[in-house]
Amino acid sequence: MMVHATGTEPAAMNPTACILVIGNEILSGRTQDVNVQYLARRLSELGITLSEVRIIPDHRDIIVTALCDVRARFDHVFTTGGIGPTHDDITAPCVAEAFGVPWVVHPETYRALEAHFAPGTFNAARQRMATLPQGATPITNPVSIAPGFSIGNVHVLAGVPRIMQAMFEALAPDLPRGTPVTSRSWYALDLFEGGLAAGLSEIQDRYPDLDIGSYPFGRPDGRRGVALVCKGLDRDSVLAAADETRALIAELGFAPVEGEPPP
Amino acid sequence: MMVHATGTEPAAMNPTACILVIGNEILSGRTQDVNVQYLARRLSELGITLSEVRIIPDHRDIIVTALCDVRARFDHVFTTGGIGPTHDDITAPCVAEAFGVPWVVHPETYRALEAHFAPGTFNAARQRMATLPQGATPITNPVSIAPGFSIGNVHVLAGVPRIMQAMFEALAPDLPRGTPVTSRSWYALDLFEGGLAAGLSEIQDRYPDLDIGSYPFGRPDGRRGVALVCKGLDRDSVLAAADETRALIAELGFAPVEGEPPP
Repeated sequence: MMVHATGTEPAAMNPTACILVIGNEILSGRTQDVNVQYLARRLSELGITLSEVRIIPDHRDIIVTALCDVRARFDHVFTTGGIGPTHDDITAPCVAEAFGVPWVVHPETYRALEAHFAPGTFNAARQRMATLPQGATPITNPVSIAPGFSIGNVHVLAGVPRIMQAMFEALAPDLPRGTPVTSRSWYALDLFEGGLAAGLSEIQDRYPDLDIGSYPFGRPDGRRGVALVCKGLDRDSVLAAADETRALIAELGFAPVEGEPPP
Repeated sequence: MMVHATGTEPAAMNPTACILVIGNEILSGRTQDVNVQYLARRLSELGITLSEVRIIPDHRDIIVTALCDVRARFDHVFTTGGIGPTHDDITAPCVAEAFGVPWVVHPETYRALEAHFAPGTFNAARQRMATLPQGATPITNPVSIAPGFSIGNVHVLAGVPRIMQAMFEALAPDLPRGTPVTSRSWYALDLFEGGLAAGLSEIQDRYPDLDIGSYPFGRPDGRRGVALVCKGLDRDSVLAAADETRALIAELGFAPVEGEPPP
């Protein structure tokens, strides 16, 4: 279980998660990852604490080593990417290797894919997508049929965001979960972190079980400000701490606005 | 040095890098990280191979452990986030701890910040930003003065993208670098990965030193396609392999377009 961001232990123990983003295209800067933010938000809603994200290349030894490491340390591991039909899609055999099981044709998935493709086009590359680690449970893919899968605490999802999201939502009802995170934000324009740091630190000290964060922002028109975010598992504490951040902003002579600053 | 994405060793040995993104706001989904893509592209241009990214929370033990791990495994480590004046900005003391050196006032930075702030406003919180691991070299921050810093192979950058970019560009001329990556892409609409996988795998086999990737995409109008990307350190090989991917697309009866598909 993750220890608390400010160095104290959380009041409740939510399950923890790690995301392994598998893809050279992220590490080269070709592609802007958007899956982490989607999963981060959804996991927070489900009461699962996202404790770490790793982005690693499409390389067998690196994937297997990372899988063995993180599946031992976190309650859930979600992988994104590398489950298509091409030579650079190596996530599934790597997961099989990490679990020490064979990578074998999954008959039900094979039949579903065979029925999906036009006669004569269910070739060897596409048949790879019906090949899963032995013992894996497919995760439904309503977009393009070829499934993700779960084995143990590892959940293997597509890299294409629309498909990844559909797979996650198919999986979500079955995930053991915890207490959803409550979050409240107040922000003010023209406020600077250096002026509020001491008061904010005192609020954090009064609410050691919460994560209280301070996030400067800039607007397109050049005006700047700071958002103060209180998060935690105990709703009443979050609401009380957020009210203290509102009061702090007002005491400093700025106009507190509830919510997150518009982008 | 990073081993090659397809399981073979690269022809040349470029320096490697790891990015440590330090920030609860990324792990909670509050904030969409955009620093990784910026750094990934710039490192690729400088001939530095981005081998891993880790996103970790604002937690002392986790930051120190991750720093000790990755600074031993990669030639460069870049951290983003956690260097402001508030209680949740703990990157600098964590780096000091990871290097086993004290976290001390840096006189030149102290004087610069003191001169920057209005009289009476250079408070304890702001003085923290003039406190660096002993032996660190400041990285200029033309946006908001408070510097990043380098110590050993660890380069500590801000989390706010505009400031992070300015710091990286101040640092870039001094980074030991390698051979820039050459990249060429061809794409086609209506193409599917399952149809080209076998031919693409043969091209990859002929160019074992290159990374050849296949990336499906969808357009807002619902049309889909695939982009084929060849990357590597030997420019002639990249151009030759990219021409073979162009020919493969044409052989399959689709219209190859040079470059990346428009977003």
